[in-house]
Amino acid sequence: MQSSNAAVVVFSGGQDSTTCLAWACARWPRVVAVTVNYGQRHQIELTAAREVAKLAGVEQVTLPCDSFRALGGNALTGSEAVADSVRAETGLPNTFVPGRNLILITLAAAFAWQRGITEIVTGVCETDYSGYPDCRESTMTALQAALRAGMDAPFTIHTPLMHLGKADTVRMIRDLGKLDWLAHSHTCYRGERPPCGTCPACRLRAKGFAEAGIPDPLIA
Amino acid sequence: MQSSNAAVVVFSGGQDSTTCLAWACARWPRVVAVTVNYGQRHQIELTAAREVAKLAGVEQVTLPCDSFRALGGNALTGSEAVADSVRAETGLPNTFVPGRNLILITLAAAFAWQRGITEIVTGVCETDYSGYPDCRESTMTALQAALRAGMDAPFTIHTPLMHLGKADTVRMIRDLGKLDWLAHSHTCYRGERPPCGTCPACRLRAKGFAEAGIPDPLIA
Repeated sequence: MQSSNAAVVVFSGGQDSTTCLAWACARWPRVVAVTVNYGQRHQIELTAAREVAKLAGVEQVTLPCDSFRALGGNALTGSEAVADSVRAETGLPNTFVPGRNLILITLAAAFAWQRGITEIVTGVCETDYSGYPDCRESTMTALQAALRAGMDAPFTIHTPLMHLGKADTVRMIRDLGKLDWLAHSHTCYRGERPPCGTCPACRLRAKGFAEAGIPDPLIA
Repeated sequence: MQSSNAAVVVFSGGQDSTTCLAWACARWPRVVAVTVNYGQRHQIELTAAREVAKLAGVEQVTLPCDSFRALGGNALTGSEAVADSVRAETGLPNTFVPGRNLILITLAAAFAWQRGITEIVTGVCETDYSGYPDCRESTMTALQAALRAGMDAPFTIHTPLMHLGKADTVRMIRDLGKLDWLAHSHTCYRGERPPCGTCPACRLRAKGFAEAGIPDPLIA
């Protein structure tokens, strides 16, 4: 009962996964957005995910995962104050949850398996790598092999943003005619709406829109 | 700060992972038993894990994972009555959580990463495969590659039971001088102690001890 006319999008409600959702909706007649609630510091991220999915007219499912918070020691789920600092001992940003994307994508794949869906879409991107090894293409290739073997299903992990810069990502969703979806997507590390404009995530987003010469509908 | 003198054992408190714990303790001076609380139907499994770890004198850590229960539709965490039936639509036992071992081992690896440990031990076994694709050696090889790539660390997944029958597993822990640890390990699907003796898990365990010609200390 495997279906090649459907896809699961790993969907945080941020700019990249919103762009992936638009990409998937243009490609498959049935798309399910899977959001993992791993104790994000800001619940606004989950609200954004619901809003964008509603706008897109796709089913959105939220899966809980309380493991990351227990693993602790990171800024996205913990209480560390500065999201843009770098953990001295590893050289990785302190937003790093080791293996985070491995877990998120595997959970999405388990859900997809239950629905008979084999196409998984994720917004991981090697270009603005930021020190995250779980965003690399080589990791996705290895993970795809593990998912196929471990669930005995012909999964494909699609990574439409893998080699794009932020400006290209902005152009992609514009060309897909879904720029307005980004008015609901959340990016700000500080959880502010309108966004703070000064945190690293806001700055990266602003740079992409500026380079593309397109106004950000979240701000406009 | 990676340490090759330590290992993490993916530790359920059952017969196989108890045998793995004994195997690991004979091999590394420092061993941490990582138990994932994924909403096991019987809390006795978590109690058994704590008891065996205490007997072994190793640190035991319990990580929560509420994702499996949300994914639902399985006997180990759900409310389906019959643990030994087979789900008609897949031909897999209804104790199957798709990708369960992928998640459990990835969580253990994330924990290990934080401790600078690269050696992961799991009791997965291809011999009594039971229809679980996430127990196969090919899956573990693929997962090892994904963990290495995704966390940028030289993980090795050790699977000492991979090609052993249940009788061999009993002989292994006997030869390691830790047969008494099995008096505290939990196997029964029904969560009974003393074990029911009639569920598939009890029968498989009994068969192994009988073939090895060794009495089960859990029953003796």
